[in-house]
Amino acid sequence: MSLDSFFNAQSIAVIGVSRDPNKVGHVIFRNFIDGGYKGKIFVVNPNAESILNYHAYASILDIPEKIELAIIAVPAEIVPKVLEECGKRKVQHVIIVTAGFKEVGNYKLEKKLEDVIKKYKLRVIGPNALGVFDAYSKIDSLFLPRFRMSRPKEGVISFVCQSGAIGSSVVDLATAEGYGFAKFISYGNAVDVDETDLIEYLGNDEKTKVICLYIEAVKDGRRFLEVCKKVSKKKPIIAIKGGVTEAGAKATLSHTGSLAGSAEIYFGAFKQAGIIHAENLEDMFDFAKILEKCIPPKDGKLMIITNGGGYGILAVDASAKNGTELAELSKETKKELRKQLPPIINIENPLDLVGDATSGRYRICIDACMKDKNVDVLLIIVLVQTPLIATDIVDVLIEANDLKKKPIVVVSAGGEYTEVMKRNLEENRIPTYTYPEDAVRAVQKLVKYYKY
Amino acid sequence: MSLDSFFNAQSIAVIGVSRDPNKVGHVIFRNFIDGGYKGKIFVVNPNAESILNYHAYASILDIPEKIELAIIAVPAEIVPKVLEECGKRKVQHVIIVTAGFKEVGNYKLEKKLEDVIKKYKLRVIGPNALGVFDAYSKIDSLFLPRFRMSRPKEGVISFVCQSGAIGSSVVDLATAEGYGFAKFISYGNAVDVDETDLIEYLGNDEKTKVICLYIEAVKDGRRFLEVCKKVSKKKPIIAIKGGVTEAGAKATLSHTGSLAGSAEIYFGAFKQAGIIHAENLEDMFDFAKILEKCIPPKDGKLMIITNGGGYGILAVDASAKNGTELAELSKETKKELRKQLPPIINIENPLDLVGDATSGRYRICIDACMKDKNVDVLLIIVLVQTPLIATDIVDVLIEANDLKKKPIVVVSAGGEYTEVMKRNLEENRIPTYTYPEDAVRAVQKLVKYYKY
Repeated sequence: MSLDSFFNAQSIAVIGVSRDPNKVGHVIFRNFIDGGYKGKIFVVNPNAESILNYHAYASILDIPEKIELAIIAVPAEIVPKVLEECGKRKVQHVIIVTAGFKEVGNYKLEKKLEDVIKKYKLRVIGPNALGVFDAYSKIDSLFLPRFRMSRPKEGVISFVCQSGAIGSSVVDLATAEGYGFAKFISYGNAVDVDETDLIEYLGNDEKTKVICLYIEAVKDGRRFLEVCKKVSKKKPIIAIKGGVTEAGAKATLSHTGSLAGSAEIYFGAFKQAGIIHAENLEDMFDFAKILEKCIPPKDGKLMIITNGGGYGILAVDASAKNGTELAELSKETKKELRKQLPPIINIENPLDLVGDATSGRYRICIDACMKDKNVDVLLIIVLVQTPLIATDIVDVLIEANDLKKKPIVVVSAGGEYTEVMKRNLEENRIPTYTYPEDAVRAVQKLVKYYKY
Repeated sequence: MSLDSFFNAQSIAVIGVSRDPNKVGHVIFRNFIDGGYKGKIFVVNPNAESILNYHAYASILDIPEKIELAIIAVPAEIVPKVLEECGKRKVQHVIIVTAGFKEVGNYKLEKKLEDVIKKYKLRVIGPNALGVFDAYSKIDSLFLPRFRMSRPKEGVISFVCQSGAIGSSVVDLATAEGYGFAKFISYGNAVDVDETDLIEYLGNDEKTKVICLYIEAVKDGRRFLEVCKKVSKKKPIIAIKGGVTEAGAKATLSHTGSLAGSAEIYFGAFKQAGIIHAENLEDMFDFAKILEKCIPPKDGKLMIITNGGGYGILAVDASAKNGTELAELSKETKKELRKQLPPIINIENPLDLVGDATSGRYRICIDACMKDKNVDVLLIIVLVQTPLIATDIVDVLIEANDLKKKPIVVVSAGGEYTEVMKRNLEENRIPTYTYPEDAVRAVQKLVKYYKY
């Protein structure tokens, strides 16, 4: 059965909404109200008449209307009973946020869930899961108060993460950095829906353009590979593997009770399935950004333009280290630039436009590179501290990028003034980075993805 | 002669203060006024009577009072004449911000400066340099308007960088991230004062506790090594080398006209001289932060405490990758913790306090680790998105850190709520990082530095 109701349900029951505003069920219910969910929402609590001015039903069986999705936040021992009621009520999609099952050694209780799921053919996310956040429908089972964890704006990245702690903090961080998300799913113990189900679903989800993944272990390696192979042809999958070292693998065993498996096997599998491997969380979002925003490059030849010589050198060093090919400008381009640029500028790669560079000088060089067949990707370093860089540098860059001829990536380091410019560029689909090394690593992944 | 007047001069003349607010000399003069420089400041401009309500002198020779430092911002061709006037006037410290010398092939003009310097025994920073920013005295020859580049607060990091563009953007960025600085020097063509002179000076500077360095090439390798060897015993020197790859080295040649030399030779020399090598700008400040804030560790055994299992695993992976030793808790500590912690918690390293961890649970573990001889450094991961972490976690961490028994490093990822907490910790001398990998890399450098 499709997982669609987890993300687009029009009517939802939250089961176990306490009157105590600090309790999980209450936080979840509030997040639906505060978040602007447009569907119908129902409260289940047998010990209250109403909560936050909503009528409280004693059981999901008492709700007179159709329910598409239930979120269960009752104590662990009564979850099987409540799940059974969902089955009877023909609510086929259920998120169980309650913890206290397999992850604490309570295999028996988890087995009971499995039985109910089979009996009623349910689809269940959890238990021991934060569940789902959908930036468009505003479905939000994350029991983290909004003042602690900001919710991201609508976007095209979807993030799948078994762990709730890692997932929520990363989404919170990425939100602060301006990333938009389509969906975030923390799937916990995966009694039913697992990482592969979610990747398959996101592969067909129109809102999702890039899939990010933090995994420690996968349930069914063969199926995971098969699905990823298909999906990665449609959209990029970026994955971090936790537990890549022996010590790390040992730690995963006590974290999720799953054997992490050899790093080499995973990395080999990633390669085979077209999955982009990120070494850490920072890289994951650096890669997501370029893959989300950039058009496919023809090939990998990188041209670096800068107004800070040192940054150009760091970018060249980074390129040489990770095997990125530097563009060699054609004779015609060099001749053209020699004519138009001041004599002190060396027509090389990196092209150092020096400290008194203006937006006009950038425009000349970008235009020339757009025409030059020897250039595939442009890495443009702009340090806006120098007095002669006017704010129209932003227009120059956006105009060039809007031609959709070649991918443009920007590097800019600085404080508030720089940040304003960077935000403007990012909103106009130009990925920007603070450090040249990060940008070069991202470019490499962009090139590799489209070669694959 | 001591370089002290570059940083502590009580009377300064800015030579070449245009009436045009966009011109370099004007910007510099304004920065002295706006920045709150407490000494006396004089304007030299032969074509004006007054500028910004300050009397304008036709020449430095006309100023009736003693001048300790001159800043020259006149056109290149008249710089030698103006420098000669400084010599006559017995102003022995001069910053020349004007460009257009050796760096554009004008060796003759640069030679003229050398001659004047010898004749009058001057100390000169520049030409083609941003010059000096001192966070305490507010001496500020950076010709970057304050709205483009924020000035850092008082601190203990000093940063030496030949290039103005890289230096200023990095200081701007670090300022936005809350770093404090003692001194920043961009020394340009180094006609007189070079990187080694500055390192030697900063080695004896009480305000400076950590020296950061971006170099492409050094003038006198032997002297550089000798000086760094001495200074690194007193305080850490962190260096980035631009042009470490063949392609990068080629690019440095056209940037500063200096041959970068083989990376291996540099890295070998760094090791010999006790210099901490940073691979990139991000690492440089990550390392500076831990070296600035942390007490020396006894040894390198790292204990990881977390409320997010995934982060613990990433930290362990990072430790294993870079050879950081993980602490093995003593039997007594394990017994003690087993008594005090809930049974679902595995007493391991990483110590995963799980999703419902409270500040109290952290306190128990930190106290136990402080007593345990098998633990040298504490890496504490705190995800504050979870509802049970109260704001008093900050007090728990600061209290433990204030004992000054073992270095504490914190990892926390998130949005605004997290950022507030992190700033609070950093102000209380606890280095905090967003990503576990960065923290582990920094810990490694801390341990290595004190072993050396």
